[in-house]
Amino acid sequence: MKALVLVAHGSRRQASNDEVVTLSKLIDEHMKSEFPIIEAGFLELAEPLIPDAIARCVKKGATDVCVVPYFLSAGRHVQEDVPAEVDKARQMHPHIPMDVLPHIGGSAMMIELIKSSVVNR
Amino acid sequence: MKALVLVAHGSRRQASNDEVVTLSKLIDEHMKSEFPIIEAGFLELAEPLIPDAIARCVKKGATDVCVVPYFLSAGRHVQEDVPAEVDKARQMHPHIPMDVLPHIGGSAMMIELIKSSVVNR
Repeated sequence: MKALVLVAHGSRRQASNDEVVTLSKLIDEHMKSEFPIIEAGFLELAEPLIPDAIARCVKKGATDVCVVPYFLSAGRHVQEDVPAEVDKARQMHPHIPMDVLPHIGGSAMMIELIKSSVVNR
Repeated sequence: MKALVLVAHGSRRQASNDEVVTLSKLIDEHMKSEFPIIEAGFLELAEPLIPDAIARCVKKGATDVCVVPYFLSAGRHVQEDVPAEVDKARQMHPHIPMDVLPHIGGSAMMIELIKSSVVNR
């Protein structure tokens, strides 16, 4: 059973964290067939932290975890910090394959998204 | 002549700023007909700053400026700081209409973008 973890930086502003949770719920509605388990996780400043979000997935029966970094640029957080947190989860659940996808800012679809924002303004 | 300004936070890490400039160039290729002028601008830590990016557009002949906040959450930067910088530009170019669009994290297409990242992994 596949799980998707949407990972954001986390903010002191609760509304920003709520935006991420809301997005994870929307993804849940749209990708239920491919990913029966969806969780949001945070690098810092908010909960659940990444290893805890992954642990939730495992508890729900995940056999395969896909981590999507909800970050715009491929900085240190994306290159080092998120993978390091996923490594912590790997040590706790060594039998579960975990995959960290490219950050969303690198998506080829970003241009289309911006285009649609402008057109629908 | 319409101009689009892609506005990001700006980073001490030059590669992150370069990612934004590269994206603005890709948008330029894809939206040349609708927006003959495209610039990247930064809230802080990188140049050009927002009023300077808008001034560049005006210098190139922009008669209408559309600002796209390249931010994931609707925090203080999106709600207060970016509009305040655009206001500075409005004072310098009072005859040019300037429109600040919603931040890209609020796009209904974000789910599709994440979906495509996962499918194409």
